[in-house]
Amino acid sequence: MKYTAKITIALKEGMLDPEARAIQHALANLGFSTGSLSTARVFYITLDAENKEAAQAVAEQMCERLLANPVIHRYEVEVGA
Amino acid sequence: MKYTAKITIALKEGMLDPEARAIQHALANLGFSTGSLSTARVFYITLDAENKEAAQAVAEQMCERLLANPVIHRYEVEVGA
Repeated sequence: MKYTAKITIALKEGMLDPEARAIQHALANLGFSTGSLSTARVFYITLDAENKEAAQAVAEQMCERLLANPVIHRYEVEVGA
Repeated sequence: MKYTAKITIALKEGMLDPEARAIQHALANLGFSTGSLSTARVFYITLDAENKEAAQAVAEQMCERLLANPVIHRYEVEVGA
């Protein structure tokens, strides 16, 4: 069956995020003041699997092996129909 | 009052996404076959605003003026407490 996995990958708490700081600075230059700003990357992946649990497991393997760097990233997988 | 805006920015339908194709190819090389793969960028921004509607409007302005390229991107703003 076909499933869609939504994978969100973000830096772990406490990791420096220079890109976010640069964006915050650029927003400030345009007059937008922000308290905090963090970023994440989302992947929407459709895949074939026997059931929802199998789809979840495959998506987590994708994170471990390619999409995320487990040293610096945390990830979250949500599988929908 | 403080609000948190979650801003999701993705390519418009029909735009070529070479990065997504490269990731799909890399996953295939690892033995993960995927039907489709698309990516999005998420920004979590905390900001001060008078009310939720004002926070939403400010976040949308940030998209229009800096975060998104309206020619190629679509964006979605969700404001929470």
